Amino acid sequence: MCELLAMSANTPTSIRFSFTGLIERGGNTAQHGDGWGIGFYEGRQCRLFHDPVSSVHSDVARFVRDCDLKSEIVVSHIRKANRGRVCLANTHPFERELWGRSCVFAHNGQLRGIKRRPLGAYRPVGTTDSEHAFCWLLGCIRERFPQPPGRARTLWNFVAERCAELETLGTFNMLFSDARFLYAHCSTRLRWLTRRAPFGEARLRDAEVVVDFGAETTPDDIVTVIATEPLTVNEHWHAMDRGSLIVFDRGVPVLTRRTAPGAARGA
Amino acid sequence: MCELLAMSANTPTSIRFSFTGLIERGGNTAQHGDGWGIGFYEGRQCRLFHDPVSSVHSDVARFVRDCDLKSEIVVSHIRKANRGRVCLANTHPFERELWGRSCVFAHNGQLRGIKRRPLGAYRPVGTTDSEHAFCWLLGCIRERFPQPPGRARTLWNFVAERCAELETLGTFNMLFSDARFLYAHCSTRLRWLTRRAPFGEARLRDAEVVVDFGAETTPDDIVTVIATEPLTVNEHWHAMDRGSLIVFDRGVPVLTRRTAPGAARGA
Repeated sequence: MCELLAMSANTPTSIRFSFTGLIERGGNTAQHGDGWGIGFYEGRQCRLFHDPVSSVHSDVARFVRDCDLKSEIVVSHIRKANRGRVCLANTHPFERELWGRSCVFAHNGQLRGIKRRPLGAYRPVGTTDSEHAFCWLLGCIRERFPQPPGRARTLWNFVAERCAELETLGTFNMLFSDARFLYAHCSTRLRWLTRRAPFGEARLRDAEVVVDFGAETTPDDIVTVIATEPLTVNEHWHAMDRGSLIVFDRGVPVLTRRTAPGAARGA
Repeated sequence: MCELLAMSANTPTSIRFSFTGLIERGGNTAQHGDGWGIGFYEGRQCRLFHDPVSSVHSDVARFVRDCDLKSEIVVSHIRKANRGRVCLANTHPFERELWGRSCVFAHNGQLRGIKRRPLGAYRPVGTTDSEHAFCWLLGCIRERFPQPPGRARTLWNFVAERCAELETLGTFNMLFSDARFLYAHCSTRLRWLTRRAPFGEARLRDAEVVVDFGAETTPDDIVTVIATEPLTVNEHWHAMDRGSLIVFDRGVPVLTRRTAPGAARGA
């Protein structure tokens, strides 16, 4: 499968610590070695880096880690290929423009029959079922809302309904952003935590790295990190319910919705 | 203004030498210091790097130069801002998906009144007239050809007609690729050269760098480089005619068309 990582924060924040842990799983502490990608929002635009090689052996991954870019919304993915060969076009996150905003999408799972769903305005460049699902989702949003809806909640609910459809096709753990909010959908496995004052020390699970967030933050910072598996050993990660969507705004969950009738506690 | 750089080749080729020269012009040998970007095609996908800072001071530019990625189509741009503030969203090349292909666009010049042209499927993320022109162009192509036309020449001619429209609005030196061909439009200034066997030595104009292409190529390689100003001192660069479009396919010009009635030799 694959692993997901995202961040939503109320101030431009470095994801270096979490990303350092994640990239170890692309060939070292886990075998998600078929490429990786990360997107950092700067306003309505997203700065993307992709590499269709294992993240532990990727010069681009090391560069991105050392660059230490700061952003309020970050979406990342490390890939273990199941559908679609290993190449740049099949490397998440995928990106398309909607309403003059860069939208990005990353997915963990497989969706049976997704490629039979007709597409609207967006077409896949690669051959993954994930990118097809993204094109379908974004096409649905665009068809329903040629302009952004006046109330954000209207869009959140629409996305939740589309997630409910997609998860009937298989496994749909997903991260999506429309440059304003971060959407996290759990169908089998996704965890999150929020760091805020008083900040403490955190220790990575996959590398010998400890950070003291107290020294790197201000008291007003709110930073939520979402990941397939906990990235640290000494913090409590909430397991998202199976069959649920959470929408984050500047580090804070603003909507939690069940998307499957028998939603149960995530593993 | 800005400077453009592109490459079309019949085999994946490094643009390191040319890019090394170009980035000097982003704050050192010239003052195009308001950001830069580059896109390397890998099949139908384009791997983009952008940085809204001067290329001579950009860690990303140094990294890309040292990475030495190889590609058959490359499009690059260094920016001197005139319309639109300095930020990621205003940094060329711009990218959108059409027909399941990544399309990229970079522009040098100003286009009066372009923002009054209504847009179709694509909306700008930033505020430059260049991105608006790209969205307009790609929207026109998409509206006329919901699917790629059977004959490539049909598309080339359509693009030439749209370039003719755009250059009536001001200065329109432009690079565009649809992942298959490279389109170069000259309204005031654009030069190109083709390197093929027997390969010789080339010396950069903007840095103390000499390369012996004989040692880096095979006899079958054909590599065309396009730039606003010659990048080397010891090679002959063809000046494109003002008011003309050239379409390149694997390093070879396959269409040359006048786009302005009084087209004259470029400066």
